[in-house]
Amino acid sequence: MTDSDNPFGAFVPGPRAERPGAASGPLLGLSFAVKDLFDVAGTVTTYGHPVWAETHGPAVATAPVVLACLQAGARLIGKTITMELAYGLTGENTWQGTPINPAAPDRFPGGSSAGSAAAVAGRLCDFALGSDTGGSVRIPASYCGVFGIRPSWGAVSLAGAAPLAPSYDTCGWFAADAEVLRRVGEVLLPAGGEGPLGPLLRPTEPWENADPDVAAALQPAMLAAERLLGAALAVAVAPEGLAVFEAHFRASQAEEVWASLGGWVSRHEPAFGPGVADRFAAARVMDPARAAAGRAFRRQVAARLRGLLGGGAVMAYPTSPCPAPRRDSSQEALQTVRVRTIGVTAIAGFAGLPEVTIPAARVGGAPVGLSLVAAPGRDRALLALAAALAQEAGLGG
Amino acid sequence: MTDSDNPFGAFVPGPRAERPGAASGPLLGLSFAVKDLFDVAGTVTTYGHPVWAETHGPAVATAPVVLACLQAGARLIGKTITMELAYGLTGENTWQGTPINPAAPDRFPGGSSAGSAAAVAGRLCDFALGSDTGGSVRIPASYCGVFGIRPSWGAVSLAGAAPLAPSYDTCGWFAADAEVLRRVGEVLLPAGGEGPLGPLLRPTEPWENADPDVAAALQPAMLAAERLLGAALAVAVAPEGLAVFEAHFRASQAEEVWASLGGWVSRHEPAFGPGVADRFAAARVMDPARAAAGRAFRRQVAARLRGLLGGGAVMAYPTSPCPAPRRDSSQEALQTVRVRTIGVTAIAGFAGLPEVTIPAARVGGAPVGLSLVAAPGRDRALLALAAALAQEAGLGG
Repeated sequence: MTDSDNPFGAFVPGPRAERPGAASGPLLGLSFAVKDLFDVAGTVTTYGHPVWAETHGPAVATAPVVLACLQAGARLIGKTITMELAYGLTGENTWQGTPINPAAPDRFPGGSSAGSAAAVAGRLCDFALGSDTGGSVRIPASYCGVFGIRPSWGAVSLAGAAPLAPSYDTCGWFAADAEVLRRVGEVLLPAGGEGPLGPLLRPTEPWENADPDVAAALQPAMLAAERLLGAALAVAVAPEGLAVFEAHFRASQAEEVWASLGGWVSRHEPAFGPGVADRFAAARVMDPARAAAGRAFRRQVAARLRGLLGGGAVMAYPTSPCPAPRRDSSQEALQTVRVRTIGVTAIAGFAGLPEVTIPAARVGGAPVGLSLVAAPGRDRALLALAAALAQEAGLGG
Repeated sequence: MTDSDNPFGAFVPGPRAERPGAASGPLLGLSFAVKDLFDVAGTVTTYGHPVWAETHGPAVATAPVVLACLQAGARLIGKTITMELAYGLTGENTWQGTPINPAAPDRFPGGSSAGSAAAVAGRLCDFALGSDTGGSVRIPASYCGVFGIRPSWGAVSLAGAAPLAPSYDTCGWFAADAEVLRRVGEVLLPAGGEGPLGPLLRPTEPWENADPDVAAALQPAMLAAERLLGAALAVAVAPEGLAVFEAHFRASQAEEVWASLGGWVSRHEPAFGPGVADRFAAARVMDPARAAAGRAFRRQVAARLRGLLGGGAVMAYPTSPCPAPRRDSSQEALQTVRVRTIGVTAIAGFAGLPEVTIPAARVGGAPVGLSLVAAPGRDRALLALAAALAQEAGLGG
């Protein structure tokens, strides 16, 4: 997979879906790739699984978000590997190959938008589209050392994209440069939401949840953020505990996953790779009462977080509690990382908040990201702040 | 319903959902209303039916499209009446009242976005959001004599909006002024898609399907379009016949309606008003083979139309084959109008094309619209063309 036709194994094997961009536009001169759950007319969307590919014809229409990038002048260079049905955070794909993490080749690239993160980290394109339900842009961005955004839920259309858990699904993107990340947002996001953000909040739970060396490595970036926004205020955002966040996220997500994909899974009974198989098995038998409790918890947390951030406050915390796990990790170790990670990614997930992750540090030779999180609709302000912070902290872009 | 608190019966009865807009932005000074299938935080989305309202709590989040309007400076003045679960074209609502058509009070306002069309036609607000699956923005705009757009499918997010038939559903809007219609598009649409359109196409079937006096009344607007774009070329877009378009649209839509709403309907067995009841009954028992045939037909037509329009061509034809039916029409007469109308609205529906309707003429004292239809993603160009045509033809805006 890592031959010259497919560096880092980032792209879906087979003929490359390539499209020229418009002759002018705000993204002229930029190249991009798209996660293989977005439709490109004339090609089959595989959703990371050969049985999905076999049971779906070529797309008639190109997903509007892809079309908007093309119309803005960007050139499409190919479709990137996703984990099977986007249901995981490692980036492993048994069928099409697991992309290499260009920033730490012995570690997972992160997922599910693994190929998009690898393509950007390996400088194969200027930006790449992914999707993020429970961390599928934020985590691979953190693991591969690139910028990534999970926009406000619903701010960017997912028409023409395969679903996972619709009330959590978002269309995000990656770039190696904060300014490119922002420029893509100017094309894809609705107008508005600019203007200053502040004060800076430091939520206690995700910082305490992070590995101590991760928290320490991110301090210089936090100090840079304080130079821009003033001293950070410590706040509790998850007094119930991040483990409770994870459990409610898992139950409410699983219910939606089965509602979206259970019909197809039941009809075809496809084989799944490690981890993914367990999650679909759990989704199939998820107790409706647990899912309902998850939804109720989510509503409470969402109201609380929206209240906290409505005046313009911005939270900063480690995107992932640890750098990417090594590729030879046991399934048990990966499951432990998953639970710790989703407790954090559920914060923005529950409330539909925009989150930008910045490649702020390295720990043991592997990247880790610092996230900035704001109120729904403040995506443009957040992208501007991320660019300012990257400059202030002397980071890429 | 038409008292001073609720002119034209446009708004959902009860406390008005009002929100101030941002202090600055491109829509500053404009007021708007939203169809009551979009969420506004803190209020219950009724979806036009009291049982829907009883079985759904207050929304936690505001739909991103509504939030974007607020952030752009527009002021929300209320939520407008939709037909029950948006499944109809007359605008009738048994439970909350049928809005008055301000342009022709003895006729239906058109639906399902009836209240939004009535609010704009009655000058209660500058623009209003609606949704359009099979004509639910285009038809009430034509009937009420205002501008309306059904954007390219998926160009504007429907997050936080109740579904009807997702592969057809779009978020559209109304305005009494072509320039306001365009300005809202600049806020809500992705960037790009501008630039000249042409040549002008005159599809034979929707012109032949229109009442002769409607076709005649729209000629001056067609001549104005020819002054802008050159002589129209006659093309066949529906050689199978518009009745075939309608049948395949109906079957494929019904399948999606039942997939989206059948669970709720089966659980609560709500009573429905005339017409809507028949359609839900038909959706419940829709033959899967007929729905599959509809989907296959749709794919063919979509590929053909996208090919026809990909170079920039723009089609012009009557939005509706006749003006709004009178409110005392029989169910049989209304069903006949529905079939004739959906044959035309399915053209853009099948292929996900953007369609702008212009209040171009009056027939027998009632408005009729002329539609401009282009390739997916050309929404901004179409809105600019509509504004130019309105000026050239001496129409509102």
